[in-house]
Amino acid sequence: MTKLSPLAVVPFVSVDSMMKLVLSLGVERFLTDLALYIEEDFKRWEVFDKTPRVAAHSHEGVIELMPTSDGHLYGFKYVNGHPKNARTGRQTVTAFGVLSEVGSGYPILLSEMTILTALRTAATSAVAAKYLAPRGARTMAVIGNGAQSEFQALAFKTLLGIDRLRLFDIDPVASEKCARNLKGKGFDITICRSAEEAVDGAEIITTVTADKQNATILTDNMVGAGIHINAVGGDCPGKTELHSDILLRSEIFVEFPPQTRIEGEIQQLAPDHPVRELWKVIAGQEPGRRTAHDITLFDSVGFATEDFSALRYVHDQLRTTGLYEELDLLADPDEPRDLYGMLLRAAG
Amino acid sequence: MTKLSPLAVVPFVSVDSMMKLVLSLGVERFLTDLALYIEEDFKRWEVFDKTPRVAAHSHEGVIELMPTSDGHLYGFKYVNGHPKNARTGRQTVTAFGVLSEVGSGYPILLSEMTILTALRTAATSAVAAKYLAPRGARTMAVIGNGAQSEFQALAFKTLLGIDRLRLFDIDPVASEKCARNLKGKGFDITICRSAEEAVDGAEIITTVTADKQNATILTDNMVGAGIHINAVGGDCPGKTELHSDILLRSEIFVEFPPQTRIEGEIQQLAPDHPVRELWKVIAGQEPGRRTAHDITLFDSVGFATEDFSALRYVHDQLRTTGLYEELDLLADPDEPRDLYGMLLRAAG
Repeated sequence: MTKLSPLAVVPFVSVDSMMKLVLSLGVERFLTDLALYIEEDFKRWEVFDKTPRVAAHSHEGVIELMPTSDGHLYGFKYVNGHPKNARTGRQTVTAFGVLSEVGSGYPILLSEMTILTALRTAATSAVAAKYLAPRGARTMAVIGNGAQSEFQALAFKTLLGIDRLRLFDIDPVASEKCARNLKGKGFDITICRSAEEAVDGAEIITTVTADKQNATILTDNMVGAGIHINAVGGDCPGKTELHSDILLRSEIFVEFPPQTRIEGEIQQLAPDHPVRELWKVIAGQEPGRRTAHDITLFDSVGFATEDFSALRYVHDQLRTTGLYEELDLLADPDEPRDLYGMLLRAAG
Repeated sequence: MTKLSPLAVVPFVSVDSMMKLVLSLGVERFLTDLALYIEEDFKRWEVFDKTPRVAAHSHEGVIELMPTSDGHLYGFKYVNGHPKNARTGRQTVTAFGVLSEVGSGYPILLSEMTILTALRTAATSAVAAKYLAPRGARTMAVIGNGAQSEFQALAFKTLLGIDRLRLFDIDPVASEKCARNLKGKGFDITICRSAEEAVDGAEIITTVTADKQNATILTDNMVGAGIHINAVGGDCPGKTELHSDILLRSEIFVEFPPQTRIEGEIQQLAPDHPVRELWKVIAGQEPGRRTAHDITLFDSVGFATEDFSALRYVHDQLRTTGLYEELDLLADPDEPRDLYGMLLRAAG
């Protein structure tokens, strides 16, 4: 067959390339840069084509497509959520995504997004906390010490200066894994035997558990005045982490209300319960935390614009790093109307 | 980096592999087999999770995601439609797709679908015509002789025995290209100087033009009794090919009414104008063509189940043909909850 035309190939960032990219830049720098892209896109929130994700639910889990566009670029992510996958050695969440030019409809990037989603979720949490967490916070409880926990810890260290971690997981092995992975990163780490113990003295509480059920990771008495809650784990219908009483005492910030009302902690509340939009805070249109006594809650479910920001960031690294392959994904006949002729010539 | 784990890789059918697959099986056999898969899935229409495609429209064109699932497998296609792309040597329509296991959410196939969409569109048209075209039809007018035209001709030859073609395109070069590509395939081909000339004596009229506008490729007086119209080109809002008077005289068959009412020829009609569902005909629940004098119209826009059938067919060819690559698309940590640790170990 003939040499691939530039119009036929799409840059592909494999898992291997993504790891090399993250390692060559350094996790901390990657998170910092990515947070800038995420903030930049939140600031121009109104230009984005926004729609709740398109979800295919099954008994075992969910497969979702998350598209968005800023009018120049279009991106979507494919992501699954299957809590039982770990039993067969698979990831609960895997993902990949595509960035395209709106003008031609041609993809300009296909990227793994399992690792990238972990990074963007953590970066988004830290961006929200910059505006919502109490000033000078240094201690964070992390409840749920699975695949997302280290990324959260590093994002909060890099962007907010959090250097004391209080870890809890129903499986102590997970906490030990998290502590071990974060060794040498400048954290003072305490492994706790209960969620109650973990939140003791923490100014920020991050919940990032994985069970697909209405769990109660935090009860009302565990959350005092002035706390910022970063609720990451509850992200689909029937999957929540907080007792509803906490929600009623909190100022709640969300990404895209129509999606969060279905998928977030606030699915437990009345459909008209007041929530505030994170983008308005980031864009400077509304204040974030107002007093030292407020309980602020970032009801994170993950929105398509964050994946768009992440794809845009990775795409911008292609030229300088060269960490990608060329994928023969698009047909490129010599003459565009002659797709069949291309087949014929391939035979000849 | 370490050897790829079987859980990390996704079989990838590139454009090159797809061409080899089509050529190794032969276009005709590919179309015949694919038509069987499409019919099979139309027969079990009710098990599919159906939703209108998720479209991002822009001035230049459209980017769409078309997901569906039968409860065991999940598939989606990414497809663009940009009529001006030809000016820059690009395809008007390019596509790729993914097939996944519902149980794990893991992709089991990533495939180019520019070529595959051309084949599935043609196979679907021929399947519809099997039930709707007048018996014994041998002559088809093909109006619009671009990238889809040869595939339509070959599908109708293979599945219905059409062996006389009357070609017309506003650009005679396109008709010549189509005739040249079909040489030796057993067709008696006439290149016509107008659409009126092309439909003369044809029992089936296929319209497959590409302009994004409300065009009138066929006017009412051009369509006599007993004709089957295979209207393929009109497939998005503002893009139609037939005068509405023809629609009012026709028995109209569609894939998925909520989508076709937005995208098909019937966007010109009242939202409650009666249409019939193709799947019911294929499943034997309703008759197709009822009399020799009926005008039947397949208002084809392309539906997600057809892409699902096509992906399923290609997936079933992987093992025997070996025509795929392995793509490092999914992260596969030694321990599923240890995504960050995988990064650390990649550095070590």
